[in-house]
Amino acid sequence: MSDSFYAVILAGGRGERFWPLSTAKRPKQLLSLVGGRPLLVQAVDRLEGLVPPERIFVITNADLVDVTREAAPALPASHIIGEPFGRDTAAAVALGCALVKERDPNASFCVLTADHIIKDVDAYQQTLRDGLALASREDVLITIGIPPTEPSTGYGYIEAGDLYSEDMDTHFLKTDRFVEKPDAETARRYMAAGGFYWNSGMFIWSVRALEQALEAHRPALAEMMRDVSPAVGTDRFSAALKTAYDKLDKISIDYAVMEKAANIVMAIGSFPWDDVGSWQALENHFDVDEHGNVMIGDARGLDAARNVVVSEGRLTAIIGVTDVVVVQAAGATLVCARERAQDVKKMVEQLRKAGGYDEVL
Amino acid sequence: MSDSFYAVILAGGRGERFWPLSTAKRPKQLLSLVGGRPLLVQAVDRLEGLVPPERIFVITNADLVDVTREAAPALPASHIIGEPFGRDTAAAVALGCALVKERDPNASFCVLTADHIIKDVDAYQQTLRDGLALASREDVLITIGIPPTEPSTGYGYIEAGDLYSEDMDTHFLKTDRFVEKPDAETARRYMAAGGFYWNSGMFIWSVRALEQALEAHRPALAEMMRDVSPAVGTDRFSAALKTAYDKLDKISIDYAVMEKAANIVMAIGSFPWDDVGSWQALENHFDVDEHGNVMIGDARGLDAARNVVVSEGRLTAIIGVTDVVVVQAAGATLVCARERAQDVKKMVEQLRKAGGYDEVL
Repeated sequence: MSDSFYAVILAGGRGERFWPLSTAKRPKQLLSLVGGRPLLVQAVDRLEGLVPPERIFVITNADLVDVTREAAPALPASHIIGEPFGRDTAAAVALGCALVKERDPNASFCVLTADHIIKDVDAYQQTLRDGLALASREDVLITIGIPPTEPSTGYGYIEAGDLYSEDMDTHFLKTDRFVEKPDAETARRYMAAGGFYWNSGMFIWSVRALEQALEAHRPALAEMMRDVSPAVGTDRFSAALKTAYDKLDKISIDYAVMEKAANIVMAIGSFPWDDVGSWQALENHFDVDEHGNVMIGDARGLDAARNVVVSEGRLTAIIGVTDVVVVQAAGATLVCARERAQDVKKMVEQLRKAGGYDEVL
Repeated sequence: MSDSFYAVILAGGRGERFWPLSTAKRPKQLLSLVGGRPLLVQAVDRLEGLVPPERIFVITNADLVDVTREAAPALPASHIIGEPFGRDTAAAVALGCALVKERDPNASFCVLTADHIIKDVDAYQQTLRDGLALASREDVLITIGIPPTEPSTGYGYIEAGDLYSEDMDTHFLKTDRFVEKPDAETARRYMAAGGFYWNSGMFIWSVRALEQALEAHRPALAEMMRDVSPAVGTDRFSAALKTAYDKLDKISIDYAVMEKAANIVMAIGSFPWDDVGSWQALENHFDVDEHGNVMIGDARGLDAARNVVVSEGRLTAIIGVTDVVVVQAAGATLVCARERAQDVKKMVEQLRKAGGYDEVL
């Protein structure tokens, strides 16, 4: 492992899609939905042998810093940084870049997600390793694209172009464009046409290349980096961060940089990857019983088929229902038609408006 | 009110149909499913002005005596009697008869249920009052039949015959036969034909008439009465009851007496009556929202229709589901297709066999 390889893990988010198990105080990345440990801890552990804990930074919400430090004790507490308010991914990435730069201005780093499920750690590390090596050599902005296994409408896509480099295990392609989440028809067309990859939200670049890109395409973020850098590691940091963030607009790193810069390269990520976007997605990661049910925790069924049941702490019994998601958590119980799992966020919004549910949201 | 009118309320039962809200330790009759107070307390209160608490006896399971006394403090504690084991309704009725006889051998009494919903208390009391008056005058065994309001397959029926007496507000008919719960086709035929009434499980008779009937049709029960009577009110009572019950077979009062005796008369009970046989039945007693949902407790819906949700203590949220019963109780959560509400008992049975669920059953 190279001393100049760093990782920034984005671990913000309010966890609304996995309500009521996830709450503002216990968002998705801190849940052990799959794999027995919090997703964030798995994201850290997946870097073992490539990037050691002392070169990993986690960017989360200010009010999640304490629980995140508790959940990931292997990381230095000072490497878990809370944003004073959410300014979308571009700000978080720029903040991570400032932190890495303070340690090593010549570093390269990957930007990783805290709440996805990734299997085949060897293949994953190979992609990161090759990407970091390329980013150390050339001023490219690397995004990781995942070969689609189904015509998903839940992901954005990257349309890739010609081969950029194949001198490593990982293949790198030039990119033609980033496209928003497509409708079902378009997604099928992408699959059939080939050359389209899922936008994983993971990136690799050098501090220098990213800073140049921010300066060129989103100077406010480069300015934020300059504003907070002198305060890193001092007790002025929180205040400096707040002042700097206050000036920022919300924008994603895709909009701010990736769709504008010319030096974009896509690494093909040939490892199983799932952003686990809703309760329904859990079924891809658990054994189903003979009736097609996924039953997690203390759950029992009678003549019930194709349900996803997650029962925390107490028994959940289902009788004669099909295609339903049932989640029993400490604060509330959710019963949701399977095809409506994306609408859990709407319910959370409804409850927030109704008021009186702060404790369970 | 006559000094010689008594009431025996049958309050046994394991409450399996309303699991998980009802449990062995908190069966249906002790739940405030409808009306804001435990159903048993409502059964006692419905007798106000007709039978005072000191002439009411409650027969329940031995292990429910304490909670029942707690739930119904208006009754003398000594009037809440626990059966050592369940021997079906005939034994409970005979035991009640023995208790009443010890107080007044010339009494008449009604046998009432603890877990039904009855509205129009005036009409109800009129039926009981007229029945008690008739039972005091003539050696008849009176059963209360309810004019059916729908072709229910959940009740047994009484086929009534000629008029027996109409000199009181309540009409009494001769009975032709008792019929078991019919299938849907038969139930529709009963409705169309007329002359069929729901078997309410409520009876009225004198101590003398019932004792004669037991002697004639089920002498073991008359013997039980003789065995326990001398022990009533003494500290030998529990032991005597256990010894006497040990000899009995399980049999319902319908099988033991009503289907055999010749002196059966049916009172037409012209009051709204519902045995609330399952979760689904609750919807008849609550307002439905504009989507046809019954939402009891802290329950919220989004695009959900025709559901019954009972949420105790915590929030239950439903999204996009239809025709589902959801019950969240302290020990467990149930999600059941509406048309399968009768099968809650099967789930309870399955859990009992599986073991480890004693605390929540």
